[in-house]
Formats: sequence, C-alpha cells, structure tokens
Amino acid sequence: MRQSQLFPKTSRQAPAGAIAENHKLLVRAGFIDQLMAGSWTLLPLGWRVIFKINQVIREELNKTGAQEILMPLMHPKEIWNETGRWEKASGVMYKLKDTREKEFALSFTHEEIILDLVRKHLQSVADLPIKLYHFSTKFRNEPRATGGILRGREFLMKDLYSLHATEEDFWNYYEEVTRAYLTIFARLGLKAIITEAAGGVFTENRTREFQILAAVGEDIIYYDPKTKKGVNKEVFDENKKNFVEAHAIEAGNIFPFGTYYSDKMGVYYTDKDGKKKPVWFGSYGIGTTRLLGVLAEVFHDDRGLIWPEIVAPFKYHLIAASGQQLAASKAEEIYKKLSKSGAEVLYDDRDTSMGQKFADADLIGIPHRLVVSDKTGDKVEIKQRSGNKTELISPEELLD
Amino acid sequence: MRQSQLFPKTSRQAPAGAIAENHKLLVRAGFIDQLMAGSWTLLPLGWRVIFKINQVIREELNKTGAQEILMPLMHPKEIWNETGRWEKASGVMYKLKDTREKEFALSFTHEEIILDLVRKHLQSVADLPIKLYHFSTKFRNEPRATGGILRGREFLMKDLYSLHATEEDFWNYYEEVTRAYLTIFARLGLKAIITEAAGGVFTENRTREFQILAAVGEDIIYYDPKTKKGVNKEVFDENKKNFVEAHAIEAGNIFPFGTYYSDKMGVYYTDKDGKKKPVWFGSYGIGTTRLLGVLAEVFHDDRGLIWPEIVAPFKYHLIAASGQQLAASKAEEIYKKLSKSGAEVLYDDRDTSMGQKFADADLIGIPHRLVVSDKTGDKVEIKQRSGNKTELISPEELLD
Repeated sequence: MRQSQLFPKTSRQAPAGAIAENHKLLVRAGFIDQLMAGSWTLLPLGWRVIFKINQVIREELNKTGAQEILMPLMHPKEIWNETGRWEKASGVMYKLKDTREKEFALSFTHEEIILDLVRKHLQSVADLPIKLYHFSTKFRNEPRATGGILRGREFLMKDLYSLHATEEDFWNYYEEVTRAYLTIFARLGLKAIITEAAGGVFTENRTREFQILAAVGEDIIYYDPKTKKGVNKEVFDENKKNFVEAHAIEAGNIFPFGTYYSDKMGVYYTDKDGKKKPVWFGSYGIGTTRLLGVLAEVFHDDRGLIWPEIVAPFKYHLIAASGQQLAASKAEEIYKKLSKSGAEVLYDDRDTSMGQKFADADLIGIPHRLVVSDKTGDKVEIKQRSGNKTELISPEELLD
Repeated sequence: MRQSQLFPKTSRQAPAGAIAENHKLLVRAGFIDQLMAGSWTLLPLGWRVIFKINQVIREELNKTGAQEILMPLMHPKEIWNETGRWEKASGVMYKLKDTREKEFALSFTHEEIILDLVRKHLQSVADLPIKLYHFSTKFRNEPRATGGILRGREFLMKDLYSLHATEEDFWNYYEEVTRAYLTIFARLGLKAIITEAAGGVFTENRTREFQILAAVGEDIIYYDPKTKKGVNKEVFDENKKNFVEAHAIEAGNIFPFGTYYSDKMGVYYTDKDGKKKPVWFGSYGIGTTRLLGVLAEVFHDDRGLIWPEIVAPFKYHLIAASGQQLAASKAEEIYKKLSKSGAEVLYDDRDTSMGQKFADADLIGIPHRLVVSDKTGDKVEIKQRSGNKTELISPEELLD
C-alpha cells in the first residue's frame, strides 16, 4: 500500500489524558481511534494486526478439533433468566427494550447462547464432544474504561465453548486448550503466566488466567519464577507462599463449569443405558483487541512500536529518499516487484522530509525498513526496526 | 473435516412455519440456526460460506483502493442527533440507556460514525479521497423478520464509505464501485440487475439497488431485459415504460449523498485557496448473510443445495462405502492426502447407510462428490453435485 493513501496520517501528539503507552502509541501511529470512552475503531493498520492475531488463534484452535461459528450479539431475556444471570450479571450487562417492550441483553459472554444452540441438536453420546468458537463483539458496562484499548466497553474476543460426556474428557480438553493458549501466546512473542484465579459472575470454581507481565498491568499477580505459574490476590491471601509480586495484563481466561450450567439449562444427552445426563462444560476466552494493546505495551521503545513479524501490519516499510528522482523511480519498481511477489509492503511515496519518513517508520514499527537513495546505488539499505545495523542488499536478494 | 465430528447433524424436517427455500434448506443442512425471530447463528458450514463471500468482496474492494477497518456497534446519541437521524430513523433503530442514563443506538448503518472519524483526521485536499469499509453487524427493528436469513433484525453487512473533494471524483468512484459490485456478484455466480430506487431514511436522491431475480424476492422490480437495467415501483410509477415485472431479492445498495451529511456534520477540508469545503460522500452496502440466503435460493434443487465452487464450504465430499472395511481404509488414505495437499474435504466417515450418506451429500451441496467402494477398485468415483454423470479417476489424477 502507498503511504500517501493510508488513512489516517500519523500524529505527533498523544491524545489528551493518555497515560498507557499502548493508548499513546496506537493512536499516534494511526492503529486505533476512540469513538467514546471504552469504544474504539480499528483503523487499517490496527485491523491488519487483529486479522493476523485471529489467524494464529484460528490455526491453533482448529488443531484441537474446534469449529468456527458466529453467534448473535442481541439475546432474549428469557435465555438469560434460565441461569439467573439476567439479574446476577446486571452490573455488567447492557439491556434494552424494543418498541414492543420485549427485553434483550447485549452479549457480555455467550455461555447461555451456546447451550441453547447445543440442546436443540444434542441427542446421543455420539454427538459429544462439541467444540465451537467464534470471533465476536462483547459489550460490558465497565465503570472504568481507561488504559487505551486494554479495557473497553465494546471489544473483540475469541470465545471457545466445549461440551463433553464425561468429567475425564472435559479435563483432558481443558489441558489441551491450556497448551494451545501457551502456543498462541508464544507464537505472538508473548510469555504468558498461568494464574489461578476466582471466577466472578462466571463460576465458583477456580479459573485459569493467562497473564502477560507488563508495567501497565492492572492486576497484581503472585508467581513462582521457577514454574512460571501464579495465583491472583484472592488465592494468594488464602495460601501465602514465596511468590514474586508482579503486574501482569490478563490476556486470556479459561473456565471449568462442570455441569452447573447444563443442569440449569437442561442440556442433556442420552447415554448407552438410555439415561439422561448433563454435559460437562467449559469456556475459553482471549481478548483479541486487548492483545493488540498488550503487544503495543510489550513491544515498543521511545520512538514507537516494534511489531513481531507474525502480526506486523506490513512486513516491509519501503522508503524512497526525499527529493531524489532516480531513487523514487527505483523505489517504485521495487514496490511493484515486491507487491507482485505477494510481500506486504507499505511504500512511503509521500512528498515529505526524510526525517518525517524515518520518524513515521519508527512510530509505526514495521519489522524491515528498506531505503532506496542515490547513495544505495543498485542496492537497497535494509534495517530491522528492532536493531540498529544497516546492510546493503540487491533487489534480487530481497525478492528471494 | 470428518463428518462424524461436524456440528450439527443434518435434519430431515424443515423448521415449523418455514416457507422460503433458503430457510428450509439452510436449516436442514446445518448451515444456520435461529436464536429468535430475525436472529441467526452461523454454524460451521454457514460460516465457511460467509468467510468466502467476504473474501471475494474484500479482493474486489481492495482493487478500488478501499481500506478495511472495523467500527463500533454501539453509538452515542449525540452523533446521531447531528444529522437528525436519532429521531428520523427511530422506527428502525434499537436504542438503550446505560446505568448512568446515557443514551446509545445500535448500528443500523454507519454514515454518522465514519463522518465523525474522518472529520477528526481530515485536513487538506491531499487527504482525499478516503475509501473505508468494514464487515460488521447491523441491527434493524424490522416489523417482519421472515424469509429465513434474507431479512434479519441482526445481520452481517459489508459497508463501504467514500469521501471526495469534487463531485466529479465522487461520481467516477460511484461508477467504479458499481462495476466492482457487478464483478462480485458475477464471481458468486449471480446475475444482478441494477435498479434505480428511492433512498428511504438514507437520502432523497435516487440510489442504485443490485437485485437478484428469484421467486422468493419480496421487491417487485421493473426491468428492461435488453439493458438489464431496472427501476423500483416508485420510480416506475413516475415514468412508466415497457419494463418487464420481476421478483428480485435486493443484495446490494449504493447511495450518493452529495454534501448533505458532510454539511450537517461539518466534514470540511481546506482547498488550495485556503477555503473550507464540504466533502462529497457516498455509501455502498452488501448484505453478506443475505447473500448466503440468496445463493441458497438461486442454487438448489429438490434434493438440496448446490454451491458454486468459489463459496462452497468444502470443495470435495468424500464418502466411504458403508460397511466395507477395505474401502474405509482407502478413503482414510485419500482423505489424509487430499487434506495435506491443502484441498478442503468433508469426509463422511460415519457409521451410517449409503442412502443416508448420499442424501446428506445432496442436501449439503458440496460441488464434487467422491465415492470409494470395493467396486471402484484402485480408483475413486467422482460426480458433480450439479450433474448426474459419474466418472472413475485415480487418486493421483485427483491430487493433480
């Protein structure tokens, strides 16, 4: 893509009141734009990162046999009443009435909706296990919606739900998803610490949070540096141990529900002896817009963002030296060749100073910066955003 | 994917009260599931089709220089008040209050939201044109939500918005998007008729609808069979001509707004002479879940769905002859090889009768059916869903 056409331009100024680095940098570099408190538009650069995060998650979940679907966001009151969460989760749910006075909730999660879906189709034990996920919008009436894109009132989440005939099969899959989550975070370049925590409006069981250590983290966790396993404050207070205190951002969360919800909603299957039995049920979330913020918090320096290659909005940032006609036509040629080969290139074709071009490249944080100037001759100067060393290579080597 | 694991099973029974073929077939074949009137879950098969429809649209819009973003679904009242649509569109908008009595609307469209986004970033004429689109959810308080997935209260749409410095540039792009839409529909195997229509709560200008002729179509259009151009009833009544009457489903719609909205919202740029000028603005929609329904209406027979290859949920439906051990192990081998080569295969590995397997293959409508049995020897029987002829080919030919 030509940078002259990219929407919007970068900005020198961080938004008023921004404290968190992800907030300042993602807004200045043009990845996100705030509609209102806790509500963000993903701009072209930001959406490209989310798209790639989703693809990594999709690949790893598909390996566990999970199937992708898409569930609605507006839900009838009746279904939420079946588990008592219409009242119990009132603090966090947005509710509305239509012109016929029918009441609805906006999706703050989808346990009730998936169970309603499954009970319509579930017959025998042969139909289990069922593993379904979607990438979708969540709405939560958060009292404090600060920290940039880390805590939104409307945000994107991947949520996976699994249903099993037996307790053993459930716990096996729970461990399999735990491993898939660690793989996902590792592929994104993030070190996740599994933390035992309380389940809030979701469950009375202990849940597992996946915490990324970062200065901006709003949760305090306590973890064992050797095992890399941790607990949250509530669990720590109960059984104090020699844990290290750290600030960690929660990036994922998995919940074991047992048969609690399926009993309430009558999600039964018929076993081999003709008996009706409730299914074992779990849910598994990863906040994908939150991950965009986490990545910005973990991967930046004082000049801007530094994207890991796997989720970078573009792979190459090609810059033509300002005011040099020959360099511009060489850059144009390289841009066309690279694009044709399928490489993702942001091409800075703007009529602006080199200082501005370099500052924007550092701010946006694309992994490989390419400069074409009269000085580079027939070659191209390549520099990694994460390093300082420059090298001259031929366009042919680049295309390889 | 193994059909034994696919959620959910097919059903012999159409849902009670279903009249439209897309409703009966998409539900029976397990593509969609109704949460409540006008609200559908896209099941694994249905989501795969939507994913592919989106990809075709994305490719054609990117060619016009449009950039993909994602905008929020919950909008503050203040922005909708700026154009008067908080009141004017009350019939169709869902509205809600949070616990602090702040008022919001759910997205029934995004004109006001994109204009608010752009006015924060637009400075000079050099920033124009701007062409942004997203794939996102729309909520419309429809009085009648019938016809299967054709008319929903919550549905998916691709909406594109474009902003231009001059009237000429705007109309050029309007024509370019018209051509892109015709390409999109043609790639999906659909013949679209461009129909002049009235703009409803969107604009007083004439708009262009893209109508697909189908028996279930709820709009009556009048069209010239030679030029393939049409008008809707309102426009027809004004200037009756020798048009043919037809039932057509609306699949896309494009709106020329001129400077009406940008004047109301103060979306100005500074021209070369330092003067402030309002931008020329248009919006362009395609209902993507509606397209799923349109495709089902157009491509089916009395046995089931017949997907065009480009959007089919899988390319091959591989069936192992029931009760034949050797055939099962051959099929298993072919399934693994095909999957490894990147081909999308639904493998019917179920322990059920051949009659059931064939009936399901016809109902689901995957383009190429492959049968492995003791009778096929070292070869595989291949049959197109759209035809009757069977052929024997070797697994090697298939892999080529």
